[in-house]
Amino acid sequence: MSDVKDITGRDIDFAKWYTDVVTKAQLVDYSSVKGSMIICPYGYAIWENMQKVLDKMFKETGHENVQMPMFIPESLFNIEKEHVEGFAPEVAWVTYGGKEKLDERICVRPTSEVLFCDYYKKIIKSYRDLPKLYNQWCTIVRWEKTTRPFLRSREILWQEGHTMHATAMEAQEETLRMLHIYEDFQRKYLGIPVIVGKKTEKEKFSGAIATYSLEAMMYDGVALQNGTSHYFGDGFAKAFGITYLDKNNKLVTPFQTSWGVTTRMIGSLIMVHGDDRGLVLPPNIAPIKAVIIPIGDSEDVKKATVDIVEQLKLKNISYKVDDSNKTPGFKFAEAEVKGYPVRIEIGPRDLENSEITVVRRDTLEKIKYNINNVVEELENLFMNIQNNMYDKALKRRDSMIYEAETYQEFTEIANSKPGFIKTNWCGDEVCENKIKDDFSMKSRCLIEDEKVGDKCVCCGKKANYRLYFGRQY
Amino acid sequence: MSDVKDITGRDIDFAKWYTDVVTKAQLVDYSSVKGSMIICPYGYAIWENMQKVLDKMFKETGHENVQMPMFIPESLFNIEKEHVEGFAPEVAWVTYGGKEKLDERICVRPTSEVLFCDYYKKIIKSYRDLPKLYNQWCTIVRWEKTTRPFLRSREILWQEGHTMHATAMEAQEETLRMLHIYEDFQRKYLGIPVIVGKKTEKEKFSGAIATYSLEAMMYDGVALQNGTSHYFGDGFAKAFGITYLDKNNKLVTPFQTSWGVTTRMIGSLIMVHGDDRGLVLPPNIAPIKAVIIPIGDSEDVKKATVDIVEQLKLKNISYKVDDSNKTPGFKFAEAEVKGYPVRIEIGPRDLENSEITVVRRDTLEKIKYNINNVVEELENLFMNIQNNMYDKALKRRDSMIYEAETYQEFTEIANSKPGFIKTNWCGDEVCENKIKDDFSMKSRCLIEDEKVGDKCVCCGKKANYRLYFGRQY
Repeated sequence: MSDVKDITGRDIDFAKWYTDVVTKAQLVDYSSVKGSMIICPYGYAIWENMQKVLDKMFKETGHENVQMPMFIPESLFNIEKEHVEGFAPEVAWVTYGGKEKLDERICVRPTSEVLFCDYYKKIIKSYRDLPKLYNQWCTIVRWEKTTRPFLRSREILWQEGHTMHATAMEAQEETLRMLHIYEDFQRKYLGIPVIVGKKTEKEKFSGAIATYSLEAMMYDGVALQNGTSHYFGDGFAKAFGITYLDKNNKLVTPFQTSWGVTTRMIGSLIMVHGDDRGLVLPPNIAPIKAVIIPIGDSEDVKKATVDIVEQLKLKNISYKVDDSNKTPGFKFAEAEVKGYPVRIEIGPRDLENSEITVVRRDTLEKIKYNINNVVEELENLFMNIQNNMYDKALKRRDSMIYEAETYQEFTEIANSKPGFIKTNWCGDEVCENKIKDDFSMKSRCLIEDEKVGDKCVCCGKKANYRLYFGRQY
Repeated sequence: MSDVKDITGRDIDFAKWYTDVVTKAQLVDYSSVKGSMIICPYGYAIWENMQKVLDKMFKETGHENVQMPMFIPESLFNIEKEHVEGFAPEVAWVTYGGKEKLDERICVRPTSEVLFCDYYKKIIKSYRDLPKLYNQWCTIVRWEKTTRPFLRSREILWQEGHTMHATAMEAQEETLRMLHIYEDFQRKYLGIPVIVGKKTEKEKFSGAIATYSLEAMMYDGVALQNGTSHYFGDGFAKAFGITYLDKNNKLVTPFQTSWGVTTRMIGSLIMVHGDDRGLVLPPNIAPIKAVIIPIGDSEDVKKATVDIVEQLKLKNISYKVDDSNKTPGFKFAEAEVKGYPVRIEIGPRDLENSEITVVRRDTLEKIKYNINNVVEELENLFMNIQNNMYDKALKRRDSMIYEAETYQEFTEIANSKPGFIKTNWCGDEVCENKIKDDFSMKSRCLIEDEKVGDKCVCCGKKANYRLYFGRQY
């Protein structure tokens, strides 16, 4: 940690800045297993906080956790055609158990639709068995060639909800309910103003009827897909032969959803809020909300430190005391690289005035509080920081959303300005592909609440959709 | 669930009884993936409770959670000789990523010693970096031929702690600290009076210097190893070349431990406490402490139900209201098979006397409580149930522990009575093997606090150890 200052500037080399921050803030480390990363205690603590909040939200909306097998036999994997085409190129195949060659090779789950379908076929018999609202927290595997911490990895920690419903409408409602739970979570806890919307046919999940995504814009204007919620209709259910007896004693097919978020959200936390000094964590998700740095070792400082710790404990505010024998300057830099929302400096001079100094990580502003009401002040301050971080991210995001009516306008923006471009589209994949080929920009999601313009930005024919384009991680 | 009564008698066919209970209480279900089970919501909720309590105990003793890769390249796996010999026959090998054959095959972790060592080699440089107290919650894979829910499975949910220490003594202390945390947890929460002790050389973990285990005795007298804590010395550290600069600037090798418990503990909960009506869960670990069954649908009953629910919520007691349209008799049977610690029957006749009926699952005793102090009474009752379950298990266990001085005595007990046999042993593996061959009984663990007898039960030479033998799951 003697090198906490050696972070590449965000505006100099964003990719290098990202790598510097994830490693210097000790979120992850590289392992000697190619394509796999190690999530270090501080990074894992962020994930645990995410899990805690989301798991509560899932349970409050009636979902239950289960654990399905991590292996999928090839024959089971092959049942839904579109799905297998989407995933087959990137699965890891187990072919030996001990010294014995397996009769049938099995893959490590890249996602668990087929496992849930196989199970639902067994347990759903009657309308009384519906809905089934299952979720699991687990690790999935996708055999990526190039990897980046939290963004692209062979092993991904995530949750996947898989639900079955009596009617298409119920399943569609569930799809949107979970999308909005994710949106809520990301706005309120991560401080990230996500754009939510439906994906185009080309960009939807293999096997879904509709995919909705949460699109976060990173500091560099590039999109990070921060979660998805899929409506499957009865496609998987039909492929797997899942049926139930409805109230009229008729054999019918149920309707399905799935939805998931991953440790990728940690990547977006870093790239939305981080700065040249390192990580900046929103108080609502930070594993350590306040770091206390005593200056010197006088009795007064020691006593004040103990006092404040007691107060923080009472209010259940997570904290850490850095009383190591490093210099204050070093400790300040370390607190900044780790992104603790506030650092509390307890020094002898301040104490003479019954004060302590609090430094906000988001603005680096220094504030003096009277020692007797530090904790009340802190509770307000955390709210302010949380709101400020969201507002700042929203402002930056909105300043990097452009509109284009013509291909020339689109070209000018795409070639000169990072960010998203709002435009109009006929709906033809040919146009979507041309934009992708010309600018490496994919459609992000459709915009439902804005009037569609007259002409497709690409072919000039009648426009039927309004949508965002943007480059992506 | 119309067949909740069809549970095989415990004393008729214990193996069938076990399978009936795990499936009818809906803890697990069979999947069409051979060797893997599905952990259903109710079973997973028990695991979540176990995780919550243990994770808190780990963190309170300074441990931090991390996440290591799930894959181990063959060359890394092969570094520690004894370890690889122990695990190689039962690992799953990945040989293809997508369509490409891998240059080096990789196995799915059967345990993560080598991954932690590989990482510790990288991050431990100085005495200031010690101790490292890491834990991870994850799934491991062992390619078992025969499987039984929670007891033996190809996929195992567990936690594995891996720690590194400056001195052998610190590492030995850690090994015992974690053993006793497990013991505490299993006694206080699971109500299981585990026997803890050191394994013999033959039974210790591949690569360990000492293995300590928690041996629980099931209802049928068979042992279930409910967790282990290992002291590794510096064996792995030397094999992996892990060294650090001590306070005298000398390059030395650190000392290591590992420790783990798995979903197997759910199996022991079932087999220690269950009865012919199904599961019996100790209140301290039950996902639902009380099920409320309203009898009839009079306004009084409805009002009383709402009242009690409010009181339970205030006291944070987990509950479930069964107001489905099944018959009360069916609901009672279902509550019994699920093992809810108490069921609360709210009926019109009781209410006339301002009473409700509470039925203890452990004794099936019916108790009337005044409706105004149900919750206070319940809190005491849960404590009583918890204590009673522990005492009952302890009594049964102790009634099935025998002593043998001679091989003839040993033979008579082993052939006629289920349970553990305490005896004396010279320490020679030949004797240990003979007992195993003759009676399918393995040594469970050494007894430290009892005087060793004169002669080895097997060869008659001088005895050096006192220990338990027992059959095992």
